[in-house]
Amino acid sequence: MEKIEILGLIAAVFTTSSFFPQVYKAWKEKSTKDISLTMYIAFLIGIILWLIYGYYINSISMVIANTVTLVLVLIVIVLKFKYK
Amino acid sequence: MEKIEILGLIAAVFTTSSFFPQVYKAWKEKSTKDISLTMYIAFLIGIILWLIYGYYINSISMVIANTVTLVLVLIVIVLKFKYK
Repeated sequence: MEKIEILGLIAAVFTTSSFFPQVYKAWKEKSTKDISLTMYIAFLIGIILWLIYGYYINSISMVIANTVTLVLVLIVIVLKFKYK
Repeated sequence: MEKIEILGLIAAVFTTSSFFPQVYKAWKEKSTKDISLTMYIAFLIGIILWLIYGYYINSISMVIANTVTLVLVLIVIVLKFKYK
């Protein structure tokens, strides 16, 4: 694998896994008032498009990263509704 | 431009611009308690790596999108410290 693709994978791990602490914080503190629902809905749409893009250019790392992010972003949105 | 690249650009617009409402909400309400600092720092590192990745693969759209996101994420982090 080319070095630059390794950099892309590391970048994907950071941007994808970054949502775990937000999901954990919202779930633990049962508070999401300061989180912007508009942001997460726009981000969700973008992630779905990136997922389709990754599928069409046969980039397995993009498909995996965006699938994980999609699930995490959906959880934040559910927690946003649950803990207004 | 290939259709799939247009899809990538639209995806980039969504994921990048999604941070504007979060910046606006944090700035307007002067409250960032529910926002995870860990998330934004990890996301920041990922965005910097995506920026380097985009530069090396000569993807102007990735460089532009990630530069805008970088600025917005930095603002959220500053607001996080300012409005504990």
